[in-house]
Order: sequence, then C-alpha cells, then structure tokens
Amino acid sequence: MMKALVLGGSKGIGKAIADSLSSIGCDVVATSRKEIDTANLSSVKKFIKKHKQTDILILNTGGPPPKTFSEVTEKEWQKYHNQLFLGFCLLLQKLKVQDGGYVFVITSGVIKEPNPRLVISSAYRLAFTAVFKLASKELAARKVSCVNIAPGLINTDRVKDLGNASEMAKNIPMKRLGEPREIGDFIKSIVQNKIKYLSGVTIPFDGANSNFVV
Amino acid sequence: MMKALVLGGSKGIGKAIADSLSSIGCDVVATSRKEIDTANLSSVKKFIKKHKQTDILILNTGGPPPKTFSEVTEKEWQKYHNQLFLGFCLLLQKLKVQDGGYVFVITSGVIKEPNPRLVISSAYRLAFTAVFKLASKELAARKVSCVNIAPGLINTDRVKDLGNASEMAKNIPMKRLGEPREIGDFIKSIVQNKIKYLSGVTIPFDGANSNFVV
Amino acid sequence: MMKALVLGGSKGIGKAIADSLSSIGCDVVATSRKEIDTANLSSVKKFIKKHKQTDILILNTGGPPPKTFSEVTEKEWQKYHNQLFLGFCLLLQKLKVQDGGYVFVITSGVIKEPNPRLVISSAYRLAFTAVFKLASKELAARKVSCVNIAPGLINTDRVKDLGNASEMAKNIPMKRLGEPREIGDFIKSIVQNKIKYLSGVTIPFDGANSNFVV
Amino acid sequence: MMKALVLGGSKGIGKAIADSLSSIGCDVVATSRKEIDTANLSSVKKFIKKHKQTDILILNTGGPPPKTFSEVTEKEWQKYHNQLFLGFCLLLQKLKVQDGGYVFVITSGVIKEPNPRLVISSAYRLAFTAVFKLASKELAARKVSCVNIAPGLINTDRVKDLGNASEMAKNIPMKRLGEPREIGDFIKSIVQNKIKYLSGVTIPFDGANSNFVV
Repeated sequence: MMKALVLGGSKGIGKAIADSLSSIGCDVVATSRKEIDTANLSSVKKFIKKHKQTDILILNTGGPPPKTFSEVTEKEWQKYHNQLFLGFCLLLQKLKVQDGGYVFVITSGVIKEPNPRLVISSAYRLAFTAVFKLASKELAARKVSCVNIAPGLINTDRVKDLGNASEMAKNIPMKRLGEPREIGDFIKSIVQNKIKYLSGVTIPFDGANSNFVV
Repeated sequence: MMKALVLGGSKGIGKAIADSLSSIGCDVVATSRKEIDTANLSSVKKFIKKHKQTDILILNTGGPPPKTFSEVTEKEWQKYHNQLFLGFCLLLQKLKVQDGGYVFVITSGVIKEPNPRLVISSAYRLAFTAVFKLASKELAARKVSCVNIAPGLINTDRVKDLGNASEMAKNIPMKRLGEPREIGDFIKSIVQNKIKYLSGVTIPFDGANSNFVV
Repeated sequence: MMKALVLGGSKGIGKAIADSLSSIGCDVVATSRKEIDTANLSSVKKFIKKHKQTDILILNTGGPPPKTFSEVTEKEWQKYHNQLFLGFCLLLQKLKVQDGGYVFVITSGVIKEPNPRLVISSAYRLAFTAVFKLASKELAARKVSCVNIAPGLINTDRVKDLGNASEMAKNIPMKRLGEPREIGDFIKSIVQNKIKYLSGVTIPFDGANSNFVV
Repeated sequence: MMKALVLGGSKGIGKAIADSLSSIGCDVVATSRKEIDTANLSSVKKFIKKHKQTDILILNTGGPPPKTFSEVTEKEWQKYHNQLFLGFCLLLQKLKVQDGGYVFVITSGVIKEPNPRLVISSAYRLAFTAVFKLASKELAARKVSCVNIAPGLINTDRVKDLGNASEMAKNIPMKRLGEPREIGDFIKSIVQNKIKYLSGVTIPFDGANSNFVV
C-alpha cells in the first residue's frame, strides 16, 4: 500500500486529490494547516520529523491575498516566501520520497502568465518551479517522478474569494471553471497506471484559457 | 461506445494508444499508412470522406529522416510540410470530432528544444502546435479537449533508427527510454475519467530530460 | 563598407531598417516585391543567383490576410508556407552571409502568443523561428549573429489594415503603437557597436504588451 | 543629462554598463557593495533614502556560490532571497524612476534553463523576472521601459570562479565567452536612440548557446 501525504488536503484541490488517491487504496494523510503550515518553518520541520518518508508527496498550499506589485509589504514578501517557496524546499530536501514514488506540486497558471493582482504567487510559485525542475533530475535517479500541475480557474473557495466566478467562467474558452475532481483523477491515473516517464514537466490545467504557444 | 481514430496505429506509440483505448471499450480504428498517409493530401481527403466523424482523434505520424538544416532539399520541405502539418490541418478542419470528444496530437520534444538533426520535425511539428493551440480554443465551445503530447525518447523502432538506444538512455535522468504503454495509458486515463479541463496544453513526456523551466 | 540586403525594404519596418543601416554607411539594397517575392520560389532563386552574398541579411515580408483556423484554404496554406517559411529557408541555405555578418528576421509577437485571427502567421513564422534557432548555432561558427525580432503592434500600414489602430493602442500598456524607427535603430545599434554575442535569440518588441513570463 | 544608478558597477558587466553610459554623457553613479548590498535590506533602504530617484536604474548583483539543490541551507535561501529578489523589489517599489526612464535588470540564462549547480540563482532570479514583467506593465504608463538581460557565459571574474573558462567556451556555438562591453553597448544604444517600445522583455545574451525555441 502506498502512503500519500497531501498538504492542504482538507478542502479544494487538495481534498479532491486525497479522495482520489484513497479510492485506489493509498494510505492517505490529508493535512490541514493545523498539521503543517508551510508559512511557519518550525511547523514544517516538526512535520518532517514526524513523517520522515512517504511514497507520494503532494505539495499544495493556499494562495496569498490579491495584491499588485506596489502594494506588497516587506513582511508579506517574507511570509509568502516561506509559505510558497521555502517550506516546500525544506520538505523536498528532507522528507524522503521512497524509490519509485511521486511528487506533485500544485502551483498556478500564473507561473507562465503572471497576474498583476497575484504578484506574490506569480513570483514564488515560479521560483519553486525552477527548484522542482532541478529536483526532478536528481530524483529521477531513484525513479521518483515529479509533476507540476498549474491550475487555471478551478471551482474552489479560493477562486470564489477572488471574484465573481460565473463572470470569470464566461471568459474561459470552456465556459466553466475546472472541477477539483478533474485534477484529483488526473493524479490518481498517473499513480494507478504507474506512469513514471512523465517527469520534470509543468502541466497547465485551464480549459484552453492560456495564450502562450508552448 | 466512443469511436477512436488512431493514425499511425499499427506500431509504436500509436499502437499503444490504440490498445489502451480498446481496453476501455472504445471502438478503435487503428490506421496504417495504407489507410491514410498524411504526406499525401488526396489520401487524407479520402479518409475524411470515409470516416466523416469520430469521438476521439489521435493525430500521429512517423518522423522524417534525420537531416541538418543545410541538408534539407526543397522537395523534402514540401513533402514533410504535408505529412507533419498540412495533412493534420485538413483533418482538424474537416473531420468532425463530436461534442465532448478529444483530440490528441503526438508531436515531439523537439517542439520546445529544436534538434539540429531533426530540423524538419522541429519546424513543422511546432507550426502545427500553434494551429492546435488556436483550434483548442475554438473546439472548447463544443467541449472538445485538445492535448498535445511531446514525447522525448520512447522505446520505438523510430528511436532505434535514430541511433544507439541504450547509449541515448544513459544521458536521460531516468536512465531509460519511455515505454509506449505509458503514453497509451496516459491518454486512456484522461478519456476514462472524463477529464476535460486539460486542454490547449503541451505535455512533454521525457523522463525529466528537458532543460527549460516551463 | 558592409552590404545589407533588406527584404520588404520599401515601406514599414523594412524601410526603417534600410534607412537606419544607410545612416551608418552600409551599402543597402532595399527590395520590394518586384525584386523578390518570397511567395514565389523562382523569384527567390533568381534573387539568390543575382546577389550571391551579403554582410547583413534582413528577412522580412508582409503578413497574410486575417483568417481564423477554420477559414484557411489549402491553397492559402501552400502560398504562405512559401512566403513566410520556405522562401526564407532557401535564402538562409543558399545566400551566403559573410563571416562576421548578421541575419535578422522580422517575425511577429504571434510566435509566442498565437492570434486566432492570424493563424497562418502564427504557424509559419513560428516554424521559421525553429529553423532560425538551429541555423544560428551553425552560423555561429563563422561569427554570424542571428536575431529574431518579434514585433507587437507597430505603426505601419499593415497594422492599420488589421483594424482601428488608436483603439488597439489603448489596450497596450504603453498606450501607443511602436514606431518602425525604434526597430530600425535597434538593429543599427547592434551592427554599429559590433555586438555579436546576442544570437539565437527572439526579442519581442511590443510595449510591454505580452503576458508570458519569459 | 540623465542620471544612472548602476548597482554592482565596480567590475564585470556592471562596470561595462557604467562606462558605456558615461560615454554618452549620463551622470553615472556606479556603486559597489559598500554603497549598497542588496543582501542587506537596511543598506538597501539607506540607499533609497539617499538617492530617491534616477532616470536609469541598473539592477545588478553578483551570483551566489555554486550549490546543488540538496546542498543549499535554510540560511542561504534566506540570504539570497534578499540579495537576488527582495532587495530588487524594494528598489523597484521605492526608488523613483523618472517618467521616460529605463530599468534594466541583469539576471542570467539560468532563468530559462535552470542550472543544477546554480539552483539559488535559477530560483530567485526567475522570481524577480516575474515581478519585473508585471512592473513593466505598471511602469509603461509613465513611459518607463523595463528590459531584462539574461547573460550566458560572459568574460568576468564570476565566470572564471565557476570553472575553466576556455574549456567552457569550447561548448558555446560562438567558441568564446561574451564580452561585458557587448552588454554595456547594447544598453547604451537603447538609451541613446530613445528606444522605448522594447519593454517587458527578457533578452538572453549567450552566443547562440541556449536550446529552447522561444
């Protein structure tokens, strides 16, 4: 039985992933901010000490409040540097993912098309994307696959907080938000079918909404 | 029952996709070059007239012979323009993919990191990638999802023709070629789980071998 | 004295480049469609035979009429394949750029963010971009530098034909179209200052309008 | 007379930029780590208080020591987060660049092709690239142009520290390192010719060495 640690697993995309992995018999630990808050590095270290290892690691955390570049304070940069970048780095460095395992990180479409209102997320999630790319090459030696999922607008509380969801949906080619289940099932399928060669890759998940060519 | 047309379905990646879609009960038509040769536009038109529509369309064709830029002749540009680009455009324009269906195109990692020996493929598969991106936005209105799979080195006859496969494998972080089955199962899972929001996206499939960040 | 061949040099961006290179003492041949029409391959071959070599080559040609993907006919694909791709390939293969020379290609911002109304240009200019990238590596051995300029909305007849220019300008962060002179002076400066290490690169030129991160 | 603040202006690329801007009559303040050390945020704040405004701002700083992902300590992440990211953010937020001015940031080719030995730089320079892209859109309203220069291997002390320079040069298509002067002259030309429409753009400067297509 594969053990899966799902950060931010109590709601939204994280919960959908936890449910989906449970459905194929994984031993899922779905954590909320009480168990691990990546903005708080001692919480991260305690978590690493407690869990030590896993077969599947899902790096996932909520997004910062909407801010334009000129509005972000030094304190906010520091806080979200921990939450979106440094906490994940420590986990990836120190929590052992077993040979043949998987790491998925849930980032955001803003890593390819940065969003003026989401400047913090655009910067730090992208920084982690670079680290994750390099880590995927190191981890490949132990047959660990690393996949970066970059969701567009998904039907979660987070997106509802960002504005009028049904209005946003109209501007997406698919005329709807994505369902958390779609991402959960996507990850489940990769694990279930032992697809390993898909690694070191960023996968936008956005209903054909992005505009860059590749 | 969903109907699937798999071009180049008699061997390699195409065959793996055909097998995988059959295993979940799709009605698969796996074509060889006898049924449709995308280098030959009248063959393409005949094929469109015969099949008219499908639920799942797999655009897949063999690669051109290795050539550096200075070696490619005018005649070769013309031939592979048909095979890798124009034939696919006609299919996408005229063969109806039913509402809620899927189009997958199998391109190559060279669309993001062009390869000096594979200049023809680097150019025309990338041109089609641009068309496919735009088509994904049009097709989204009818809930058709479009996914571009860009394989790295996969264990097929094609790759064996390109050189010493076990030598090539050593330079890949995963120390092996990909298996056609991994791509077949990947596509199967998307269809089986009705994952639709993944569209307008290019997915490198290369064992963590590529070097670009996103 | 350096010889410069400027295709499409009778108006717009091409003319600005021709003027700018003249101003620093280059021997400029600014061609119009009468001297070379890249849509017509025999015209291209005649041009190569006549000129044989140059120090600076500016690959530049008008854009196709606006068309969405479903509207493009087979004949149009063929025509613009010649005009935007194959004609340039033949020139790059057969017209000798002297050691220490320069090749600039003027493409378009649509190569990174394909435009639904400009599908032909999005596809073939991108295909040439792949070829040009690979050629830059071959030509580097002879100290020839290759730079791809990808203009956004520039104040030319072409852009006026595409729609209401002052309306378009409002949506650009810089609130104006670019001036052809800016591109002319940019190219002039590279030549004048013997900047050679800038090669194999695509430079969007768009008033901060594009949305991709890198 | 335009005022230019050049960070890291006492040697290497920064010095070449300072010299080049001086040669066209700019009033250049070339700072060394004594005047401003971006790793030290109070030094950054003092610098902002002292200078308040400029016409041209060159964001430039040395690179961190080579480290692979698993080797980087928490303390190092924190330090270089300040040096490569947060210090630059504060400068861009609080030091006024006059209307019609310029901001150039000197990053690195690793922002597009992250380097396993330069993981810190790959991450934080890329994070700043996202911020800089968004800032370019805000600053465009005041006709300030923002250009990100991403050098490959340039003939500086830094590169000599990283290894055998002449050995490295052999693997570059141009068979040499770039000269700091080439970057200095490039920036000078943009200022001198009042090229403003080039903004929100990242320009690799690497002798045709990179492998991504766009």
